[in-house]
Amino acid sequence: MELGVIGLGRMGRIVVDRTLAAGHDVVAFDLDDEAVESAAEAGATPADSIVDLAAELGDDKRIWLMVPAGKAVDATLDDLDPHLTEDDVVVDGGNSHFERSLDRAEACPAAYLDCGTSGGPASAEEGFSLMVGGPQWAYDELVPVFDAVATGPDGHGYMGPSGAGHYVKMVHNGVEYALMQAYGEGFELLADGRYDLDLETVARTWNNGAVIRSWLLELCEEAFVEEATEDDALSDVDDYIAGGSTGTWTVQESLEQEVPVPLIYQALAERFDSRNEGRFSRRLANRLRYGFGRHEVARRRED
Amino acid sequence: MELGVIGLGRMGRIVVDRTLAAGHDVVAFDLDDEAVESAAEAGATPADSIVDLAAELGDDKRIWLMVPAGKAVDATLDDLDPHLTEDDVVVDGGNSHFERSLDRAEACPAAYLDCGTSGGPASAEEGFSLMVGGPQWAYDELVPVFDAVATGPDGHGYMGPSGAGHYVKMVHNGVEYALMQAYGEGFELLADGRYDLDLETVARTWNNGAVIRSWLLELCEEAFVEEATEDDALSDVDDYIAGGSTGTWTVQESLEQEVPVPLIYQALAERFDSRNEGRFSRRLANRLRYGFGRHEVARRRED
Repeated sequence: MELGVIGLGRMGRIVVDRTLAAGHDVVAFDLDDEAVESAAEAGATPADSIVDLAAELGDDKRIWLMVPAGKAVDATLDDLDPHLTEDDVVVDGGNSHFERSLDRAEACPAAYLDCGTSGGPASAEEGFSLMVGGPQWAYDELVPVFDAVATGPDGHGYMGPSGAGHYVKMVHNGVEYALMQAYGEGFELLADGRYDLDLETVARTWNNGAVIRSWLLELCEEAFVEEATEDDALSDVDDYIAGGSTGTWTVQESLEQEVPVPLIYQALAERFDSRNEGRFSRRLANRLRYGFGRHEVARRRED
Repeated sequence: MELGVIGLGRMGRIVVDRTLAAGHDVVAFDLDDEAVESAAEAGATPADSIVDLAAELGDDKRIWLMVPAGKAVDATLDDLDPHLTEDDVVVDGGNSHFERSLDRAEACPAAYLDCGTSGGPASAEEGFSLMVGGPQWAYDELVPVFDAVATGPDGHGYMGPSGAGHYVKMVHNGVEYALMQAYGEGFELLADGRYDLDLETVARTWNNGAVIRSWLLELCEEAFVEEATEDDALSDVDDYIAGGSTGTWTVQESLEQEVPVPLIYQALAERFDSRNEGRFSRRLANRLRYGFGRHEVARRRED
């Protein structure tokens, strides 16, 4: 099979490498010439534009987009549009909102697959987990590529019609936030609790046979090893947490569906909380404690 | 090494079998004669009383208790007490509260190891994760047995002084509640959301390469396979959730330490919520909606 790959960042490059390694052909394009050159050195056919990529692929194009969710996807689809027919297949492997994927599937001349991709750059060797929505025939058509990019046949699945792939990935990420926060709470209690514990030993012991063993827990163990300092564990890691769009979407969807997701919401709220520099609600609490109890109002220090 | 095992339920029997399989000797006792007989058939030396077990072990006794946390531990320790010296080692492999383990370590004539055991009956083949607290020499002494009962040398760890093992296990279980609830929220949103999804396919796809892959997620996949019905997934599984002691302890300890654990608390609260037959707070909400808005008060039906 011949696959066009647009977007050769860390994730897109893994798609290229794993597809080539499985014996398929790849035509690669990125706005960054160096990324194209590097993919060509790895065995891909370089394209110097989307027009060039489309021409190279000929009929029955199979194209994988691995560009940032949002405007980059639309801009790429606009450029591709005149070159696409209903016999072509376009895969969006990014973290697009499922409703945007529904819109794009409707607008795109080609069969459009929304493909939630989990595993991240760490999955270069083992392969990704791919959650795919869209026309069944297009999914079936791409199976050889999905087999290559995923961990294997078990690492990808047809979730349902357009949007279902990104929908499942959205919920995956909501669960991911809550899992991260759950481990975080446990390790924080251990770190600040009444025993002087070695968190690396705890994580290693848990990762071998305990009910809560997981890949995220392995990453915790790795973090305690790699971030060991003379002070407390992780002492020089910032506690501001970035990200949050897929978690926000999950909570928004849970409101639409009236399905309570208190842990996912709370994990998202922890991220928001990490970004403030003094919360208004806490200031108000201090002033109210003065209001009813004449407790002295602590004042902000000029640092 | 010769190990006495008291308590031959599912977990104790796994301790017996794995210790025997590693080439050690086991003296086994349980209040249930049939359990003793069965262990004897597997190669253990049967004891018909705790006195008999103590006599069989001779000097430098190494004894593993796998009896239910609480009174059964104290009753067993009372019976063992006259036969123990400071050269002996007693392991409590159950889910005791760490403060009880501290008390027992002080009262016990032998070196006392509190051993948090995770993995459950499902771990018969792979071995447990063992979190051990108590005197370091006693831990070192028992390493050959821990190697056998755990997944191997990486599956057990010395956590610290008395109580540290059960403390780490307590927090492990708190995290476990939150992980279970996090997956539960995600699958519930998928089950009740806007796509008709096959949860077995979702879980299988996630378990292969996704960030949230874990043993608990494998158990979700297994549940969707084994509990498949013509109706919705899990439709004939009750939604009353039992258990909760270790989660309660975790939240209590988080209050002592002033470490917020909102997800663990919320997961525990979900269990409490599962046990009510109509919550007072919801009744009050219905009556208040009448109070300020004259919304009709729904009345309970006699079923």
